[in-house]
Amino acid sequence: MSELGEILSKTIERIGPRPYEQKRMSELSEKVSATVARNAINLGLQVNVKLAGSVAKNTWIRDRLEIDVFVLFDSKTDREKLEKHIIAVGRASLKQLGASFTLRYAEHPYVEGHLNHTRINIVAAYETERGRWLSAADRTPFHTDYVTSKMTDTGRNQARLLKAFLLNCGVYGAEIRIGGFSGYLCELLAINYQSFLETIKQAASWKPPIVIDIEKHYRNNDEILEKFPQHSLIVVDPIDKDRNVSAAVTQRRLAEFILASSLFLLRPSDRFFEIKQPRAPKASVLAKRMRREKRALLGLFFQNPVSRPPDVLWGELYRSLNGIEKSLAREGFGPLRAEAWTDGRACAMLFELSTGILPRSYLHRGPPVYLPNSLDFLLKHLESESTLAGPWVSDFRLHVEKKRSKVLAPEIIRASMKQGQVSLSPNLADSMTNARIKLGLEIVSECKTSAEKLSFLADFMDGRPVFLRKQR
Amino acid sequence: MSELGEILSKTIERIGPRPYEQKRMSELSEKVSATVARNAINLGLQVNVKLAGSVAKNTWIRDRLEIDVFVLFDSKTDREKLEKHIIAVGRASLKQLGASFTLRYAEHPYVEGHLNHTRINIVAAYETERGRWLSAADRTPFHTDYVTSKMTDTGRNQARLLKAFLLNCGVYGAEIRIGGFSGYLCELLAINYQSFLETIKQAASWKPPIVIDIEKHYRNNDEILEKFPQHSLIVVDPIDKDRNVSAAVTQRRLAEFILASSLFLLRPSDRFFEIKQPRAPKASVLAKRMRREKRALLGLFFQNPVSRPPDVLWGELYRSLNGIEKSLAREGFGPLRAEAWTDGRACAMLFELSTGILPRSYLHRGPPVYLPNSLDFLLKHLESESTLAGPWVSDFRLHVEKKRSKVLAPEIIRASMKQGQVSLSPNLADSMTNARIKLGLEIVSECKTSAEKLSFLADFMDGRPVFLRKQR
Repeated sequence: MSELGEILSKTIERIGPRPYEQKRMSELSEKVSATVARNAINLGLQVNVKLAGSVAKNTWIRDRLEIDVFVLFDSKTDREKLEKHIIAVGRASLKQLGASFTLRYAEHPYVEGHLNHTRINIVAAYETERGRWLSAADRTPFHTDYVTSKMTDTGRNQARLLKAFLLNCGVYGAEIRIGGFSGYLCELLAINYQSFLETIKQAASWKPPIVIDIEKHYRNNDEILEKFPQHSLIVVDPIDKDRNVSAAVTQRRLAEFILASSLFLLRPSDRFFEIKQPRAPKASVLAKRMRREKRALLGLFFQNPVSRPPDVLWGELYRSLNGIEKSLAREGFGPLRAEAWTDGRACAMLFELSTGILPRSYLHRGPPVYLPNSLDFLLKHLESESTLAGPWVSDFRLHVEKKRSKVLAPEIIRASMKQGQVSLSPNLADSMTNARIKLGLEIVSECKTSAEKLSFLADFMDGRPVFLRKQR
Repeated sequence: MSELGEILSKTIERIGPRPYEQKRMSELSEKVSATVARNAINLGLQVNVKLAGSVAKNTWIRDRLEIDVFVLFDSKTDREKLEKHIIAVGRASLKQLGASFTLRYAEHPYVEGHLNHTRINIVAAYETERGRWLSAADRTPFHTDYVTSKMTDTGRNQARLLKAFLLNCGVYGAEIRIGGFSGYLCELLAINYQSFLETIKQAASWKPPIVIDIEKHYRNNDEILEKFPQHSLIVVDPIDKDRNVSAAVTQRRLAEFILASSLFLLRPSDRFFEIKQPRAPKASVLAKRMRREKRALLGLFFQNPVSRPPDVLWGELYRSLNGIEKSLAREGFGPLRAEAWTDGRACAMLFELSTGILPRSYLHRGPPVYLPNSLDFLLKHLESESTLAGPWVSDFRLHVEKKRSKVLAPEIIRASMKQGQVSLSPNLADSMTNARIKLGLEIVSECKTSAEKLSFLADFMDGRPVFLRKQR
């Protein structure tokens, strides 16, 4: 067997479910389904209960135990009732199962429980015809049926390899925080390309935009590109031609997947399938590195004021991160990169700047000399205290060199936020405006209270995708 | 009389030649012409001697005493003989007149002498028909005739006002160093617009490109703009439709003239006609200012290795100044302005930078992940000692943050020059590469040996056209 073949077969052995786990999960999911069905009847509901997700499709990977039970309501049920019922059914079922209970929100509320290292999701959907979707969850049972009908046993292991590869490379998961590949997307790729290796080979030579239409819903790629303009990766949903299954994949995660695929083919290694969280670094080591490298890092540290679902919070964090990055660029700090972190309550943002201190002076361009307002500009700046040089003319325009009142990134970015010149998510605007804003070494002090924050800082300083990270 | 009228009439009184000067200049130019004619005959030359320039046209201004005598050779005379003869005639004539003697070079050699504060130029030209020019000087006698035929006594004073205004505003003189308006150009403007004030009013509303065709050599402006593309100011020579009299006027001087005109109309003052050279500032004052303003000034100090005519040297200085400014921009120093200075031997260049020190790190963009060479880039920078962060992907491209080996403007610009990456005039390349290159305060020390250099530095720090400068 080739080196590559050996790596893959060993990995399948390692990540695939063990026979006893298989049995336990089948039994547990049957039990959960039955409990949910019974409770629905007890509450007088006319519903169907259906197992969905990776357990139903048998594409789950070891240690990621997750049972999705869908409660399918008649399409005439009104939304408010559906929400009320799913919470009641879910709460009662989890209680009877002896599981924990958490209320979660996606497009509509659902119920999550934990039992023996297994996550249980109890989700409401409408029982509709294909294409007549009433809620975002309605497609899921169709996805489960589609994948089940297309997958062979070999195919299932190929999908598992792909999931493990993507998970380890940091591009698995459609949640906002990751912006990566969903489980369903992995399964479709495995169905389309037949094997893990073929998927990786194809991905290594993907050049965006990439188009995959397994069920040939469209006559040609041009039709698809016109339907999904500006999407870099388009995987037409086999059960819904109007939906791009990979719409949540960000450009960055797509590019990282392409890169990881190329790298794996060049240097195959089981490292790509081994999920190792490096130990949190010591604050003193990071401080030493910060001093040595003299890097211009800017950090914002603040609290999330209201508890919100992770996707909502991460959406707000990313939007605000982007707003600050743009503002830093406008002010002349030439940010190279930006990342956010949160544990749900504490939030941190890090920016790598070209410089943390602006020059004492800046160039101010005025109007062309042949416009009447040029004299106003001239007289204003001729007498101004903050004019260091000029006005002079260049390219027919007046120019002056002005003195800056503020030069440090923290004070400038705070002033911009206070003046409402930074595009921030309204929910975070206040806490961010009053954030602790730090430069360089001070950031290490801010992070040293938490191993998670220290890891975030260390990873940011490395600035590499997970699969390129050195072990600390 | 209006305030403006009073300023102008007082100025005419002050700058126009006094009656006795008028008489003295007439007599002296007659004497010079006669001496030159006699010496030509003595040497057996078949030539005509003709008085040209501002004395012949009676448009000279007080204290700028200059007599131009043209020796017109037959068009069959070969160039070498013409050059030999003009030197011989000039030398003999100046000696008999008791004047000093200097050999000068424009397109061909000419002879310059000084006598009683008066400059005497003895210049060779071919006696040709209009349009059949054999040398650059051949048009001059035609210019003299044209202006003489068009000028009234009032017109002459208007031309004088215009010359004095331009001289004081730092935009008078067609030499490379200035790149301004020639005397002939001033006279044509005065002829075209009839008066000084009308010229200034028109100039204040000039919007480039500006077209003036006094003798209507062309049917319309479009024809002229097509003939002289990219010229901002086109004044068609009345005696040569193929020549733009203002070709030597730089964009900057044109813009300064427009600005000075607007400003004069807004705030008329005899300040615009008073030529005052401010006193050289004290080195200690400049040092104090440099410290207070924390400006990032870069200075190059070197010697001109070979004596050359001013126009040649200034051409080389400006070309090299431009080369360094471009190189500084490429390297990330964001130069705002640049100026050169020379006394013919010592040379200095000053640059105002956005910063004199680059950040310790810089962003290096690599290829897109979907190109095969992206892996080479990845592996190269993954292991490199000079990689601070990355590689990461953004916009489908690989990026790394690299450590800079040099951060100071002087060492970076010297290295660029050594590697031949700066466009320098060949004659200056060696001395510039070995120049003393200084930052900030060190520049004051370099300049304090010479009042001229101190003035250059002070003027550069002010960064204003002459007419906006404060008195020190």
